[in-house]
Amino acid sequence: MFLERVNSPEDVKKLSVEELSVLSDEARKALLTKLSEHGGHIGPNLGLVEVTVALHYVFNSPVDKIVYDVSHQSYIHKMLTGRKEAFLNSERYDDVSGYSNPDESAHDHFTIGHTSTSVSLACGLAKARDLKNERYNVIALIGDGSLSGGEALEGLNNAVEQGTNMIVIVNDNEMSIAENHGGMYGNLRKLRETNGEAECNLFKAIGFEYYYVGDGHNFNELLPVLEKVKDTDRPVLIHIHTIKGKGFAPAELNKEIWHWGMPFELETGKSKFDFGSEEDYAGLTAEYLLDKMKSTPELVAITSGTPTVFGFTKDRRQKAGKQFVDVGIAEEHAVALASGIAKNGGKPVYGVYATFIQRTYDQLSQDLCVNNNPALILVFAASVYGMNDVTHLGLYDIAMMSNIPNLVYLAPATKEEYFAMLEWGIHQNEHPVAIRVPAMGVISSGMADNTDYSVINKYQVTRKGSDVAVVALGDFYQMGETICDSLSEKYGINATLINPKFITGLDTELLEELKVNHKLVVTLEDGILEGGFGQKLASYYGVDSIKVKNYGIKKSFPDRYNPEELLKENGISVEQIVEEIGNLL
Amino acid sequence: MFLERVNSPEDVKKLSVEELSVLSDEARKALLTKLSEHGGHIGPNLGLVEVTVALHYVFNSPVDKIVYDVSHQSYIHKMLTGRKEAFLNSERYDDVSGYSNPDESAHDHFTIGHTSTSVSLACGLAKARDLKNERYNVIALIGDGSLSGGEALEGLNNAVEQGTNMIVIVNDNEMSIAENHGGMYGNLRKLRETNGEAECNLFKAIGFEYYYVGDGHNFNELLPVLEKVKDTDRPVLIHIHTIKGKGFAPAELNKEIWHWGMPFELETGKSKFDFGSEEDYAGLTAEYLLDKMKSTPELVAITSGTPTVFGFTKDRRQKAGKQFVDVGIAEEHAVALASGIAKNGGKPVYGVYATFIQRTYDQLSQDLCVNNNPALILVFAASVYGMNDVTHLGLYDIAMMSNIPNLVYLAPATKEEYFAMLEWGIHQNEHPVAIRVPAMGVISSGMADNTDYSVINKYQVTRKGSDVAVVALGDFYQMGETICDSLSEKYGINATLINPKFITGLDTELLEELKVNHKLVVTLEDGILEGGFGQKLASYYGVDSIKVKNYGIKKSFPDRYNPEELLKENGISVEQIVEEIGNLL
Repeated sequence: MFLERVNSPEDVKKLSVEELSVLSDEARKALLTKLSEHGGHIGPNLGLVEVTVALHYVFNSPVDKIVYDVSHQSYIHKMLTGRKEAFLNSERYDDVSGYSNPDESAHDHFTIGHTSTSVSLACGLAKARDLKNERYNVIALIGDGSLSGGEALEGLNNAVEQGTNMIVIVNDNEMSIAENHGGMYGNLRKLRETNGEAECNLFKAIGFEYYYVGDGHNFNELLPVLEKVKDTDRPVLIHIHTIKGKGFAPAELNKEIWHWGMPFELETGKSKFDFGSEEDYAGLTAEYLLDKMKSTPELVAITSGTPTVFGFTKDRRQKAGKQFVDVGIAEEHAVALASGIAKNGGKPVYGVYATFIQRTYDQLSQDLCVNNNPALILVFAASVYGMNDVTHLGLYDIAMMSNIPNLVYLAPATKEEYFAMLEWGIHQNEHPVAIRVPAMGVISSGMADNTDYSVINKYQVTRKGSDVAVVALGDFYQMGETICDSLSEKYGINATLINPKFITGLDTELLEELKVNHKLVVTLEDGILEGGFGQKLASYYGVDSIKVKNYGIKKSFPDRYNPEELLKENGISVEQIVEEIGNLL
Repeated sequence: MFLERVNSPEDVKKLSVEELSVLSDEARKALLTKLSEHGGHIGPNLGLVEVTVALHYVFNSPVDKIVYDVSHQSYIHKMLTGRKEAFLNSERYDDVSGYSNPDESAHDHFTIGHTSTSVSLACGLAKARDLKNERYNVIALIGDGSLSGGEALEGLNNAVEQGTNMIVIVNDNEMSIAENHGGMYGNLRKLRETNGEAECNLFKAIGFEYYYVGDGHNFNELLPVLEKVKDTDRPVLIHIHTIKGKGFAPAELNKEIWHWGMPFELETGKSKFDFGSEEDYAGLTAEYLLDKMKSTPELVAITSGTPTVFGFTKDRRQKAGKQFVDVGIAEEHAVALASGIAKNGGKPVYGVYATFIQRTYDQLSQDLCVNNNPALILVFAASVYGMNDVTHLGLYDIAMMSNIPNLVYLAPATKEEYFAMLEWGIHQNEHPVAIRVPAMGVISSGMADNTDYSVINKYQVTRKGSDVAVVALGDFYQMGETICDSLSEKYGINATLINPKFITGLDTELLEELKVNHKLVVTLEDGILEGGFGQKLASYYGVDSIKVKNYGIKKSFPDRYNPEELLKENGISVEQIVEEIGNLL
């Protein structure tokens, strides 16, 4: 087995071209074995086996520097750069992250998990090289799906201006996570159909020297082009056609489903993970919106390349027809589009992961909130229980969004509240509204929510008590209930429990009332403390005798953490909080 | 005079083509008169006179909807849509804002001041139109300089996908604010040189039906193309060549200087405003960096289309040579580029307006701070005394940036501190660092600053007192001094004065010490309160008996405000604060 002997790219270079093919087969097999047992990004890595092997055969990493866009396709790169044990030895599967990671290897230059950044980051590496009068290759490898993101296009435009060695590899597998969207993909198709010969060429228009590789799984096509551009003195772009999921029939057949997955049976592709029939907010949201679309022709659901974040699987997208828009990876456009639709009497609902809404601060502020247009945004996985890779955290949305004027950011605690907010958010015409969709499962109160959400910043007192008031935001509301129960049990304290529902404003009337017979207000929020919800209450009560204790995660970038442990480190568990309240009273 | 009779676009449509030329001359003359007396955006508006007249001649605004990118070129549009008095009558000059504004007219659809948003916003208008089965034209007018922004490229890509009526007009005046930068401008030049006939065409590559107008000041060229595309059923792009500053010789000659200006003498172009010889942070910064570049070849200054924000006028850019990079309007790229440069041993310094750093939240978080690369960012006009148009406010940077982990955001109070921080920021290798450049003039303490800024979050106690501590951040430090003087004078209170210097962390050791003999901590910051600096202290002291009073601007979008008035409305003046402290003690 060649793979077992590959401890660094040096060992790849020793092989013959025929042996590279054997190595690739071994790598693909190891990849499939690990993925079937461990889960991870499947299609992107299967499609890039030969390209990665060829890169390490031709170039001299880490002196030559390869930057992987979004980097969920860097598994083979990891195998070839001293980390093969994390793929061959099941006990060491978790030695490596699912993304490029400079802490793991000198062959990784950045921690990357958001798309469309590789060309710009690589431009930086190249610029520093040039300033220092050094000579080596800088390579950015970017998928066709990531090309639609604004930062990628800014990067391409400036890579050409920079004018020195820079090799951009476009891995064209004709897919984003779902299918691609946008006019440029017509040009990519035309280039594939003409074997790169079409005169009208997006990349040439931007100024790149352009090469086309029709079969990205064939070393006889890959190697000559890579060797030709090696040590070039100018910006070059190689457009390589690959097959997403290459070598695993189910993944080649259904590319969207097999982009990422949980453990599966290698023979059949059947998932080992029983998703069960439990309802989730994604599916519930899509069904609600599909139904609503029938009576509301101006309602339109928008995604930026992640349609299933709010349940829009392929069949549901077909059902929605023109009332569903996938803008591709283009979060900025999505927010501005929603603002424009709302301005002109449409009813846009943009579903997005908390980690990716980060890409739109200025669009939220300028395109949407300065204009005060009534678009609705659904923010998913905004929680310590969301994705736990450092690049995909959902801990910062409150700090980022809730300080933008005019936005009404809502935090439902139950299924009933969520759908009442959704209903109100769609039909109201007064505010840009966002909803922080609970991330700890669908919890039903069993009670209809008849709240009039047009009365902004009205908190709900769900238990009236004294001495201590627990203000428990969104999906931490249920923790607030348990805390109050425990306070009663342990100390005989009859605490007030408040479901604030509104993240973006204070219910000052209620806060004034609390002063009468409360000594302590406790806030709970599922995100970072700094710039968040609770600190606003602390400031409000700053000169009063009432005390305020804020619970949340201390500002940081935790990586692959255990949620319960992270919470405990931050003093957040029922036991810790009850004890601290006991001490404070 | 035709212009006096134009109360709406209807009145433009009544004119003959010859009369349109006369109207254009009148409009240009009125524009120049107002600009010479009032200041404003000069080049962009002079260059767009005929195009705007032609648009209102051919199309039927406001049923047909025109969206102006960045909208600082919408003055002629305002003249023709019922707002001519704001250009003809000097007493009414301030009736209109410098940007499109739906509060002024139904012909304006959005409040816009940041670039690269028009196509996406127009896509939204068009999508709502299509959902409602309505029929009219939606037009996005965007300058060549704005094309390099990621949101513009995302918008173009998706306008084509949308596939219905959408007319994008690219106003190609061969300039951004300064000269253009990026590979795509080579293609625009080629298209101009070939009268739009070059086969390799960026816009066709994205999928647009493409038209070229070589002389955007000639109605005989403009009108036939506009009439041809009117009521099209698909996405069309018209590339129009215009001359920035057209009709005013000084502005045609020096396009960068005449992009925007203060009042000037119409005959000579000489500024009526005496800038004097007072030093400012822009010029001081550029001179400092130019000098530093000589001994530090890996130092590179970066701008995203606004080089003079930190003093890099044309001559200084030439002096810096390869150590100055203008990426064009591409803020996201600028931050990622800086991160890449820092990663590879370069020393990047990115100078940017506070209002535009907003366009890079995710790049700050993911590309820079997750990677903890030691890039330096200089944030200008971050103040209530910065630009006061609602689209250009510098009030939100602390809330946006300071809650991003790993970033060290510094607030100097004096010239000496600023340069000490700049020096440290360039040479350190530990953190991403940003400096909030004071916006209230260059104030020298006369004392060298020998602070070791590598000791993070160490505040400086500048006066040691008791009872009340005034924590006065950045350019509000001098107000803190005056408040302490006044407290002493008025109440005999010997207040402690603190210059925190670090926005992104608490000096908990000092905060603990204050508990001993202080009853009240007052924070002052030059920005919005919510999510800002002071609220973190309030949260820190939440369960202590020490009181905290935070001063800052309440979260809002003020427009064309008077700074002193805005501050007073928010309780911020020496008199108000001293009195309130007196009451609180």
